[in-house]
Amino acid sequence: MNRDRQAVSVLGLGSMGSALAAALLDRGHPATVWNRSADKARPLADRGARPAATAEEAIVASPLVIACVLDYDALHAVLDPIAGSLAGKTLVNLTSGSPEQAREAAAWARSHGADYLDGAIMTTPPGVGSADMMFLYSGEQAVFEAHRPTLAALGDPLHLGTDPGLASLYDAALLGLMWATMTGWLHGTALVGAEKTPATAFTPVAIRWLTAVAGFLTTYAPQVDAGRYPGDDATVDVQIAAIGHLIHAAAARGIDNALPELLKSAMERASSAGHGSDSYASVIEVLRNPSDGA
Amino acid sequence: MNRDRQAVSVLGLGSMGSALAAALLDRGHPATVWNRSADKARPLADRGARPAATAEEAIVASPLVIACVLDYDALHAVLDPIAGSLAGKTLVNLTSGSPEQAREAAAWARSHGADYLDGAIMTTPPGVGSADMMFLYSGEQAVFEAHRPTLAALGDPLHLGTDPGLASLYDAALLGLMWATMTGWLHGTALVGAEKTPATAFTPVAIRWLTAVAGFLTTYAPQVDAGRYPGDDATVDVQIAAIGHLIHAAAARGIDNALPELLKSAMERASSAGHGSDSYASVIEVLRNPSDGA
Ligand SMILES: NC(=O)c1ccc[n+]([C@@H]2O[C@H](COP(=O)([O-])OP(=O)(O)OC[C@H]3O[C@@H](n4cnc5c(N)ncnc54)[C@H](OP(=O)(O)O)[C@@H]3O)[C@@H](O)[C@H]2O)c1
Ligand SMILES: NC(=O)c1ccc[n+]([C@@H]2O[C@H](COP(=O)([O-])OP(=O)(O)OC[C@H]3O[C@@H](n4cnc5c(N)ncnc54)[C@H](OP(=O)(O)O)[C@@H]3O)[C@@H](O)[C@H]2O)c1
Repeated sequence: MNRDRQAVSVLGLGSMGSALAAALLDRGHPATVWNRSADKARPLADRGARPAATAEEAIVASPLVIACVLDYDALHAVLDPIAGSLAGKTLVNLTSGSPEQAREAAAWARSHGADYLDGAIMTTPPGVGSADMMFLYSGEQAVFEAHRPTLAALGDPLHLGTDPGLASLYDAALLGLMWATMTGWLHGTALVGAEKTPATAFTPVAIRWLTAVAGFLTTYAPQVDAGRYPGDDATVDVQIAAIGHLIHAAAARGIDNALPELLKSAMERASSAGHGSDSYASVIEVLRNPSDGA
Repeated sequence: MNRDRQAVSVLGLGSMGSALAAALLDRGHPATVWNRSADKARPLADRGARPAATAEEAIVASPLVIACVLDYDALHAVLDPIAGSLAGKTLVNLTSGSPEQAREAAAWARSHGADYLDGAIMTTPPGVGSADMMFLYSGEQAVFEAHRPTLAALGDPLHLGTDPGLASLYDAALLGLMWATMTGWLHGTALVGAEKTPATAFTPVAIRWLTAVAGFLTTYAPQVDAGRYPGDDATVDVQIAAIGHLIHAAAARGIDNALPELLKSAMERASSAGHGSDSYASVIEVLRNPSDGA
């Protein structure tokens, strides 16, 4: 513990809440902790945390309260009965949910006299405490700035904007990117695996390739914002031809082709909607307008 | 031109073949070039290349012949009539195609007394010549080693193994990863865009997130090879719950959900097949066995 470090209370000591509390203790923050099942506070108490008997006692103990429970039902089950104790506090809510739930929680906290930041944790518990890992926040800029030094104990804090729903919105968007990327990787791993290439041989090449793909995203982002998609590098029609090779090679090896078939059909819809000579970025037009080219 | 640099002939001067020839010239390689439509040789001749009147004349001019035409039909249309001229040469074929086509071309080249490497170019023409860009090769190790210094003029040469089909197989697998990643990114971009976040604001966060995702792939690759998928970090069942948030948020904003719905159904099939408490890597089991959990 360190007297010039801000005192923090952590509500919810599941695998994520425990990692958050541990990271704060590691950086010398006085931490008060509370969990519905009290036994989960014990390992943290051994590391110097002060266990609170009730959630209210935990809130009273520190100016900054971090909540990380299962979902918003759990959050409201904990906080609604003791809303009055939040007056004058800052509530940082790292519980996952929808942008709408985050906005409602922000309004609810404000109505009880609390400042509010919503957050999304872009790592798993072992990554907590590393400056490489992104923690996304949304809500009032001044509240974020006031607590940035403390939030930096958890990971690299990024402020996305004042709308409290933004962190959840980015969270959903980034997780979607993750599942798409992981499934594309697994499909490719299955394909090369059918010819006895181990995943551990393919993956370093795949990861290096993702760096090149990131370069394409950087090229395409301003095209999306401009709504113009010059196909100088590779056109949708060229990609449609190329994905045929993948589908053929995977089918010949008995691998499920639902993912590449779906990607091909998205490209074909973009082509039918007039984007055959445009870049892949034009596929966003059919994602935004599901009936286009269908 | 540089007398101690290997002489190279390039067959096919489309946008990619022209970039290859230009990169060789830039590094001081004497280059002979040929294209079916002769006019495409002119800009390269202006940069010091020697235009050949026929493909045969180009092959005779150099010990190393790089072919990059539209497809294997074009390759055979060019080479079959003049196969005899390949004896004693090394043919590096950078034309895209299937692993089967690459293997046949390797056997065909061998039958005419030529060494053969198959290759896949993991960049677009403007990336050619950069050491950051991967060029994948497969075929005899000794042939690769002999020409590695010359191939390094085009990009970073990686030798995948002796089976000539490997470069094409990796190419298909990596392009599949690219389309999945780009489509996941476009879906996320459409989602945050529905709340007025520009693609140029979301994309740097998405790219940084891909670095974290690459870390997950590194964790999961040995799980795939071992066929055991401990779900310590995040289980398939937890991901199924989380993807519901994405689908809900995207549906509320009128965005096409075919991609996340497909990803969810792959996860559900993995869960039904007994992988609910395993990591996401276990989804490969249902990709390999399309009938599992269906
Ligand atoms: N784990 C990750 O990798 C990860 C990554 C990013 C975000 N998150 C988010 O972080 C949050 C917590 O996740 P976790 O991994 O820590 O989950 P977890 O290990 O399952 O812990 C769940 C926590 O919620 C509490 N809880 C559940 N229902 C409750 C209720 N009705 N009243 C009071 N407390 C209740 C649990 O208390 P008991 O111990 O008493 O059951 C426990 O503290 C979730 O929103 C999750 O989406 C997790
Ligand atoms: N461009 C890329 O970003 C990229 C990336 C990776 C791999 N590749 C691969 O590189 C190869 C070439 O692509 P590219 O972008 O250069 O395509 P391109 O600009 O369309 O050029 C096609 C080339 O093939 C030749 N050709 C087509 N049919 C022929 C035939 N029957 N006989 C002789 N020559 C024929 C064309 O000659 P004419 O000029 O006489 O028509 C031209 O030289 C393809 O296999 C492609 O998949 C391209």
